[in-house]
Amino acid sequence: MAGGKTGRFTPDELAARLSGLHPDLVVLGPSELAGRHPGEHPDNLACGVMAQPASTAAAAALVAWCNENAVAIVPQGGLTGLVGGNVSHQGEVILSSARLNRIVAIHPAEMTVEVGAGVPLEALQHAAAAHGLTTGIDLGSRGSATIGGMVSTNAGGILAFRNGVMRHQVLGIEAVLPSGAVFSDMTRVVKVSAGPDLKQLFIGGEGAFGFVTHVVLKLEPQRAHRATAFLGVTDAASALSVIRHFRSLPAITLEGAEMMWPRYIHDAAALKGFDLSWLEDGAAALLIEVSAETVEKAASALEEGLETLWEPLALKGGVIAQSLDQARKFWEIREDSGFYYPAVPNAPSFDISVPPTYLDAYVAGLEARLKAIDPSYAAYVYGHIADGNLHLTLIKPGPLPEDELLAVETAIYTGIREAGGSFSAEHGVGFEKRHAFEAFAAPEKQALARVIKQAIDPKGLFNPGKVPF
Amino acid sequence: MAGGKTGRFTPDELAARLSGLHPDLVVLGPSELAGRHPGEHPDNLACGVMAQPASTAAAAALVAWCNENAVAIVPQGGLTGLVGGNVSHQGEVILSSARLNRIVAIHPAEMTVEVGAGVPLEALQHAAAAHGLTTGIDLGSRGSATIGGMVSTNAGGILAFRNGVMRHQVLGIEAVLPSGAVFSDMTRVVKVSAGPDLKQLFIGGEGAFGFVTHVVLKLEPQRAHRATAFLGVTDAASALSVIRHFRSLPAITLEGAEMMWPRYIHDAAALKGFDLSWLEDGAAALLIEVSAETVEKAASALEEGLETLWEPLALKGGVIAQSLDQARKFWEIREDSGFYYPAVPNAPSFDISVPPTYLDAYVAGLEARLKAIDPSYAAYVYGHIADGNLHLTLIKPGPLPEDELLAVETAIYTGIREAGGSFSAEHGVGFEKRHAFEAFAAPEKQALARVIKQAIDPKGLFNPGKVPF
Repeated sequence: MAGGKTGRFTPDELAARLSGLHPDLVVLGPSELAGRHPGEHPDNLACGVMAQPASTAAAAALVAWCNENAVAIVPQGGLTGLVGGNVSHQGEVILSSARLNRIVAIHPAEMTVEVGAGVPLEALQHAAAAHGLTTGIDLGSRGSATIGGMVSTNAGGILAFRNGVMRHQVLGIEAVLPSGAVFSDMTRVVKVSAGPDLKQLFIGGEGAFGFVTHVVLKLEPQRAHRATAFLGVTDAASALSVIRHFRSLPAITLEGAEMMWPRYIHDAAALKGFDLSWLEDGAAALLIEVSAETVEKAASALEEGLETLWEPLALKGGVIAQSLDQARKFWEIREDSGFYYPAVPNAPSFDISVPPTYLDAYVAGLEARLKAIDPSYAAYVYGHIADGNLHLTLIKPGPLPEDELLAVETAIYTGIREAGGSFSAEHGVGFEKRHAFEAFAAPEKQALARVIKQAIDPKGLFNPGKVPF
Repeated sequence: MAGGKTGRFTPDELAARLSGLHPDLVVLGPSELAGRHPGEHPDNLACGVMAQPASTAAAAALVAWCNENAVAIVPQGGLTGLVGGNVSHQGEVILSSARLNRIVAIHPAEMTVEVGAGVPLEALQHAAAAHGLTTGIDLGSRGSATIGGMVSTNAGGILAFRNGVMRHQVLGIEAVLPSGAVFSDMTRVVKVSAGPDLKQLFIGGEGAFGFVTHVVLKLEPQRAHRATAFLGVTDAASALSVIRHFRSLPAITLEGAEMMWPRYIHDAAALKGFDLSWLEDGAAALLIEVSAETVEKAASALEEGLETLWEPLALKGGVIAQSLDQARKFWEIREDSGFYYPAVPNAPSFDISVPPTYLDAYVAGLEARLKAIDPSYAAYVYGHIADGNLHLTLIKPGPLPEDELLAVETAIYTGIREAGGSFSAEHGVGFEKRHAFEAFAAPEKQALARVIKQAIDPKGLFNPGKVPF
């Protein structure tokens, strides 16, 4: 495994050799990287060398050199990945999308955009807003997550229940293959049946098959007239009924449906001084946002919905945001989900999906399985409820000893594949879910992944040590 | 190339050897296949042996035997493919999905379905209708096209502008790999980021990477309250403005937008005795269908739309269907697009996509390029206008001499990739678009396709002679 070994170049040697490979290439060495924030994982910048191409040609020159010299490459975007997919080791070189940061062209009449891989999601949203458009995908880390990174992890987020995930938003991809060759499929149409669609390999490929430089994405109309509410619900089944109600209203678009189980909402609210007097004890909270032709219509849809659903669903409270500022505070409770880390540093966290109708049974079973390991075990449970995506955090400082982590993983992942879900819903495999991939991904899928990795990257130079091959 | 050679077994020998491989396997030999309709290509059944597994295990047993004995396999569904992707040769065996025809489970609350690959689209639509649901994809050949075939060609159809293509509808796939191993990824959720998503290879893979046995698909709510109109338009730009109008109405869903250029609508209407008195001479026809809460609301949206758009878009006529029967007749004009074959047998036909804003320039350029080859050349032009998908038929009996076909292909395909379109939008490559793939697909894509084909199917046994590898 290339990721483990120390390369034959020191970081300074490597930086010196890479500089000058191409006029569009900036190379940073250990001294320039010293003191930089490494993003979500402390070892992201550990290799000490970062190449920043400003063009596909520059990226190709870098990759060709690395291929010839057997130097491993760690592709990096906004460093917001949560599973260590960007961790680097000495001897490797980081291939960063930071300077591939141009929005090349927005095509308003087609609702598509050509964009450099290094453009952050929020920057793209701002540019699209000038045309009354926005991205069909949105997520909490929009300020730093890059389009290239979102492609590489097949990012999901808060709109996937309606628009699908990144794979469903991508029309075209340009990428540099491990050989240094450029794969360019910058299609701008949705209908393509012209042989195998190999760009799909880069979506969710976590940098194992190449380095994405440019992307064509669908856009969708902005819907600015919104209203936001918090509802108290007993379980996921009730939350799904609320969701069905709002999705069935013809003049309303559901923009978000985020559920926080009781422990999460109570601890998050306590920490942030958020008033929970509207929520009955022991109930879960469901954040609902809708859009309509006017803000007033959106708000009255929420009011009428609350009234209609109150008795049949035995709702446990409700509050409608009275201002944009209040709506933002509602969302902060959900999106600032790292609130618990100061109290439980490195708490083991998980990101799974199950068919939505299985959510309540899954959560009940999970709690029982965790208690069976240790009666003191409890978890924060929250997530994108409409597509069955749950985030789970064990309320215990990490890292856990290996055998304990294994027991917890088994409690969390067992049965998910058989139920039609996934042990990783939107965060990827990276370094930290390697074990889960080996233990819980279908063996035939693992075998096929190895065959294809070997065929595309025979030297194993792209993002070694992450998704296991 | 395995597809060209004659195998070492006669069809009767092959049928005899395959029979009894698995209890769920039915094998038909030359005598049973004699006189069967071969579907869209006369050579589909030419190999004379068809294996019909009723389970994935039976398909796997068949494939394992073929792998061991180096017998090539031609996967077949409903035989509605238009590019010869199902053509078989002596020595090969057809692997048919005909008996994988069970709708395994519909999950109404999740709006998903698990379905055998051999289920025809329309049968699935009927089954889903019992739950108020339907498929998010629809196409003219719904009566015979199977789900497995639609996966293999990444089918598009009339709803792709809104819901995407088959790739966007598929959640899970089970398939038999060329080795005989079973790849099972029957995920029922949209959010998956658990390593490379290798089931994508089977979508649009045209049977080159394995045989799809079962599929999980998204479903969507049925919208039965509809209204249908024909409008006269001067060009695609006007048609796209009409489409934008109806897509912007909050209480209306656009269900179809099909454009027929003047020559097509006139000849089709003449042949079918369809009244065109509403359409100004020389105008194109745009078929629009919308749904709403009630049939009345749908119809008045069309009436108001006609009124609003008439002057600004200089519409060239309009007629709203007054009954379901009349709406069906409107659709027949578009869906019975083979009307011209009796007059021009084997007329060369093409299926391309370009970014919608490029449609008018493309069609004008195409007409000029065709006339430059032969001043008598003309084409029928029609298609799924909202996603830029055009069907083109040269009004001349085929097959053309090779050099003439090459000139016509060059006229049709040149510049499409550079414009962000595709030389095959929804029909696949098959046997007939091999040359186009070699001439017009990006060289690096072709090279990568060969690498992956070699890795997955090193003996080249799956659907040889089709997409060139």
